[in-house]
Amino acid sequence: MKVYLDNNATTMCDPKVVEVMLPYFSDVFGNPNSIHKFGTASHPALQKAVNQVYAGINASDDDDIIFTSCATESNNWVLKSVWVDKILNGDKNHIVTTEVEHPSILSTCKFLEDQGVKITYLPVNDQGVVEAHTVKSFITDKTALVSVMWANNETGMIFPIEEIGEICKEKGVLFHTDGVQAVGKIPVDVQSVHVDFMSFSAHKFHGPKGVGGLYIKNSQALTPLLHGGEHMGGRRSGTLNVAGIVGIGAAIELATENMEEKIAAIKAKRDRLEDALLEVIPDTFVVGNRENRTPNTILISIRGVEGEGMLWDLNKFEIGASTGSACASEDLEANTVMLAIGADHELAHTGIRLSLSRFTTDAEIDYVIVHFTQAVERLRAISSSYAKVQPTLGGETQECELHH
Amino acid sequence: MKVYLDNNATTMCDPKVVEVMLPYFSDVFGNPNSIHKFGTASHPALQKAVNQVYAGINASDDDDIIFTSCATESNNWVLKSVWVDKILNGDKNHIVTTEVEHPSILSTCKFLEDQGVKITYLPVNDQGVVEAHTVKSFITDKTALVSVMWANNETGMIFPIEEIGEICKEKGVLFHTDGVQAVGKIPVDVQSVHVDFMSFSAHKFHGPKGVGGLYIKNSQALTPLLHGGEHMGGRRSGTLNVAGIVGIGAAIELATENMEEKIAAIKAKRDRLEDALLEVIPDTFVVGNRENRTPNTILISIRGVEGEGMLWDLNKFEIGASTGSACASEDLEANTVMLAIGADHELAHTGIRLSLSRFTTDAEIDYVIVHFTQAVERLRAISSSYAKVQPTLGGETQECELHH
Repeated sequence: MKVYLDNNATTMCDPKVVEVMLPYFSDVFGNPNSIHKFGTASHPALQKAVNQVYAGINASDDDDIIFTSCATESNNWVLKSVWVDKILNGDKNHIVTTEVEHPSILSTCKFLEDQGVKITYLPVNDQGVVEAHTVKSFITDKTALVSVMWANNETGMIFPIEEIGEICKEKGVLFHTDGVQAVGKIPVDVQSVHVDFMSFSAHKFHGPKGVGGLYIKNSQALTPLLHGGEHMGGRRSGTLNVAGIVGIGAAIELATENMEEKIAAIKAKRDRLEDALLEVIPDTFVVGNRENRTPNTILISIRGVEGEGMLWDLNKFEIGASTGSACASEDLEANTVMLAIGADHELAHTGIRLSLSRFTTDAEIDYVIVHFTQAVERLRAISSSYAKVQPTLGGETQECELHH
Repeated sequence: MKVYLDNNATTMCDPKVVEVMLPYFSDVFGNPNSIHKFGTASHPALQKAVNQVYAGINASDDDDIIFTSCATESNNWVLKSVWVDKILNGDKNHIVTTEVEHPSILSTCKFLEDQGVKITYLPVNDQGVVEAHTVKSFITDKTALVSVMWANNETGMIFPIEEIGEICKEKGVLFHTDGVQAVGKIPVDVQSVHVDFMSFSAHKFHGPKGVGGLYIKNSQALTPLLHGGEHMGGRRSGTLNVAGIVGIGAAIELATENMEEKIAAIKAKRDRLEDALLEVIPDTFVVGNRENRTPNTILISIRGVEGEGMLWDLNKFEIGASTGSACASEDLEANTVMLAIGADHELAHTGIRLSLSRFTTDAEIDYVIVHFTQAVERLRAISSSYAKVQPTLGGETQECELHH
């Protein structure tokens, strides 16, 4: 059996999505900006996709959604263009973000620091969440932008976007959220929260890779990252990726229709897996309480078991998991989120992320419970650090002390 | 019959390309940066695609190709990152480009002008070509970059890239070429010419939309446009568009294998069409000599016939053509390249671009000759400007005086 539990890194493109994309490669292939029939033939499908994405995040007609190549592009766009518009050509000099953002935010912030921008990286609490009052306390009259993710990629923890949005609105500061782990997983309604910009990506909710979007509230001004022709009103140039846009539309509709049922189903499987692992394996804890987590995610720490070793063992049994962000998983580094929540360095190397999808089956969960447990037993048996602390298998679950 | 003659705007994705892409949507779907089998399963196909693209432009192993979402991204990347690296954080202040670049270069240059960068827009000669000595005369010790396209999108005219490259090398100035209309259409060998950066896009040579590339000579430093994770050595972040990359690899191989034969076949059809139109329709000329043009392109001007009107007439007969760049074709503007070569304003509204592909058939050429000619007759019969100049159909072909 093959079990894919790395859906926070990327997802299988739903075969139904591929099916609706297919005509837009070789049959309806014209450039939508062309005025002939070969070009205009794609317009109904593009319009449908736009409507599907609007519906998927409940954007209103006055708002705006711009298609990009991925959330990394959307994230770079917002940060760099706010830099150009408000800092280089304005009187601001400061951006507020968090220690646990995706590398596409953190690396961009490092770049902006090199350009003289002051960046505040907010810490998370022991639940792995940035608290709204913390955001508030760091905003100054020089702050151009607050960028806080909607849900964390490693822990699945959901951040208080509504409160942070209200604070930014009150302070008159632009607010961007990286919604890539929220859109398609939990209800996202850009009219019920105040966000100026929200990034998202199709491949996180069973759409194709290579297409994402940026929601821009009230179509407000933001210098393009990709200048060029008149595509999308001149806001993001480059020939439209018609098949990709059709794909993101279909994918978001499939992800958000009957969403409560989908969430309940995935959460039941996730909770069963989490309960079983916590029950069977001693000295184990999961980051963050379930109610405030995306329904598909578990970041589990097993004392004495190095995360990379676990991955290799799981891989032998054709179980795909992760130690954190795939964007950094070629590095053997400590899990940054676990360090941020206060785990010691040894423990921060033990995090394993299991992220389910709507395609995950009960049989797969059963299989993972068996093989995950066996892998832990095997690795602990040869672990010098665990043996020193715990001469016999035993100890209490969920009571690991984080702060030594 | 439907005839698509707008291949410089975009091309049909070759069904063979779609076939090789298909497994990378729902079967092999892992994130290539993940260390489990779901991720690594894509590596052989990605490696094959990389090899195909290297071979397609004859890049050496010491050089570097970075996949992007399109040539517009590649063009923005080079110009904006040279701005950051050499102007904002260096002692340069000047970029040399041409009046006839694609909007993704020209709009980016306008943006950079707003940031205080000095831009020189070089004119073209009456063949629509920028001459190398013109480039040389405008390079100063403050010049950070020269950006000159390899072939023009509207006329198909091929620019003296080899000479310009030598000049830049001699002057110690970075040289970028937008190769989007050259790669896949004519032999492009980045080892035989000196180019530091070259942009290209799959959808111009029967690959999918949404994937392109940037060739970077000797992997030299260039600040990323998309900061983030460790994808492609940290040079361009964002989850790899595996299907798209597999597609660009297959597409460039198909476009460049037996290229001489392909060029001869397409050129024969293009020349037959061009000869027929010039012979049958008086007061008509084509921009630029054939030998120095991409083999698939005709920019034809028919005095007294407004280009947009021609497009609509051709569209009725299901012939897809263009008045120029699709990136601007929703605007009823004069053809900028024709203005640049010195056409008067009335004539500059008469340009029709016919761009063939390897899928264009002889029967399609026959069909276009008939319907194109009929459309001209009909439109000239109702043209007040043409009637005034030419009371009867007649006059000499290819001798229109451009400079009044």
